Amino acid sequence: MNLIKETQKLIEEGIASALQERDLPELYHPVSYTFSLGGKRIRPVLLLLSAAMEGMMPKEALPAGLAVEFFHNFTLLHDDIMDAAPIRRGKPSVYTKYGTNTAILSGDALMIMAYEQLAKCDAQRLPLLLKRFNRCAIEVCEGQQLDINFESRPRVAIDEYLEMIRLKTSVLLGFSMFAGAYLAKGDEALAEAYYRVGEKMGMAFQLQDDYLDSFGDPALFGKRIGGDILMNKKTYLLLKAMQNGNAGMYREIVKWLEMENPDPEEKIEKLKELYRLSGAADDAVRLRNSYYESAMRAMSELAGDKEAFRALKSLSEGLLMRES
Amino acid sequence: MNLIKETQKLIEEGIASALQERDLPELYHPVSYTFSLGGKRIRPVLLLLSAAMEGMMPKEALPAGLAVEFFHNFTLLHDDIMDAAPIRRGKPSVYTKYGTNTAILSGDALMIMAYEQLAKCDAQRLPLLLKRFNRCAIEVCEGQQLDINFESRPRVAIDEYLEMIRLKTSVLLGFSMFAGAYLAKGDEALAEAYYRVGEKMGMAFQLQDDYLDSFGDPALFGKRIGGDILMNKKTYLLLKAMQNGNAGMYREIVKWLEMENPDPEEKIEKLKELYRLSGAADDAVRLRNSYYESAMRAMSELAGDKEAFRALKSLSEGLLMRES
Repeated sequence: MNLIKETQKLIEEGIASALQERDLPELYHPVSYTFSLGGKRIRPVLLLLSAAMEGMMPKEALPAGLAVEFFHNFTLLHDDIMDAAPIRRGKPSVYTKYGTNTAILSGDALMIMAYEQLAKCDAQRLPLLLKRFNRCAIEVCEGQQLDINFESRPRVAIDEYLEMIRLKTSVLLGFSMFAGAYLAKGDEALAEAYYRVGEKMGMAFQLQDDYLDSFGDPALFGKRIGGDILMNKKTYLLLKAMQNGNAGMYREIVKWLEMENPDPEEKIEKLKELYRLSGAADDAVRLRNSYYESAMRAMSELAGDKEAFRALKSLSEGLLMRES
Repeated sequence: MNLIKETQKLIEEGIASALQERDLPELYHPVSYTFSLGGKRIRPVLLLLSAAMEGMMPKEALPAGLAVEFFHNFTLLHDDIMDAAPIRRGKPSVYTKYGTNTAILSGDALMIMAYEQLAKCDAQRLPLLLKRFNRCAIEVCEGQQLDINFESRPRVAIDEYLEMIRLKTSVLLGFSMFAGAYLAKGDEALAEAYYRVGEKMGMAFQLQDDYLDSFGDPALFGKRIGGDILMNKKTYLLLKAMQNGNAGMYREIVKWLEMENPDPEEKIEKLKELYRLSGAADDAVRLRNSYYESAMRAMSELAGDKEAFRALKSLSEGLLMRES
């Protein structure tokens, strides 16, 4: 079994075990349901592989891995309420299935369960790990708040957008790699180098996510294609198309953004065309590649375990090439 | 200045300072607003006084004190959404003033801020402190879930109700006293003795809260009197009245519970009368006193600093005699 599969197996077992002895179904079924929807467990895999890079058995880093996965799923539960997103991975989201109040409270419990896992980490490493986890967690909330703020703002600069996705997505990937390396070696400076790799991978990852939301294959993507477009979400694609496009394209984009009750399929098709014509779609791919290459360069400077390094590299390629 | 006032001053300064450097107003204004509504800061005062009992300067225990106060206020933000409670301390609750999404996200940030404070505690004491805080936090969520479950259940036993308020309210008071003593001395068994005092005080405190909801002075209470009655909340008063009352009283209670669109003032008056006639009101006072006396007995066995002991005793008396 290869290292990625091995870590994924550990993670699934860890999730099941953490949920096994909880006996308040109204609170914990929604949590189990969330995990049953699947997912690639990218963050804990990154954490366990980073630990393995620095010589720690993946299993030993599992509690920290579960902490980041639990925290990530907590954000999904609450974000789906805030974004009024009825579907998650092709199935009803938790608040759709169980109601808003349940999604709030089960999300809260899941965040606490993340800290329960963190508390199992080596006592010597715990103080810094907790401090960094807290910083990351509050940044994720700030990213979500910026995302909400941008919805009602007439203009958002591309730099502001990139800072928002850094907070909302990248810092948790950064922390995951930090935590793996730090648990293994206890060397903060070394762990910072891992953080930077994860942060850059997170940027590439989120840009890919935005790209797939418009240009993905509906059969693979698990969500409706064009969701961002219908919600007038100020993604990189939209912001770049408005910046790149000539006056005619700009007016056309604004017309679609302001139209009341547009035909949804037509709006999606027209905006995708404008993303292509303005060069925004190509720019998104270029920027994603540039973050990815920068992450790979930074990773190549890490001199860790060879097998773990190959696994980390193949995981990263997979994330960039993914269709879902 | 007496010790209680001194700790309260420290806590207010600590709250202000923790909020000072946050510059995303959409996320943090609702948090500041919550604290501006006031409150007695009972949990951090208990924590700081317990630390002082065991010889620690209250100021040194401040981060842990802020952690419990932040956590408590996080629960208020989310509970008010779930309970659809428009008023908190005589003012609009956060979700009424800022909307549900903001109350969710600001509540999340506030929970993380609690852990930020916890992370500042002495590194030697942190592992156990974090573990106990997590246990307490998850119990509070479970208590809230039971409270929600009870709303739609036809029957709730009085023991179940008492277990629910233990989880929802008492364990955080217990943890507060545990944390103060544990930070000061690092002795888990000693800290457990403090936990038991806080837990019993919490029971007395919550029973008093339920009592005031029906029998408090509206000018002092800060919420509408009879809110629990109008919501058919299965409080100790209601459960005990159904248990104590004769067949006629029981039918009368059920009639009011099932009546569609009753006159609110009439329903409140009639049920208060039934609480008095059935002896449930007196039983509530008796049970509250019994928890209080049990807490005082347990407290008298703690052989700590005399001034802190007197302050803790006077605080406890104040909580029991309170009208709001």
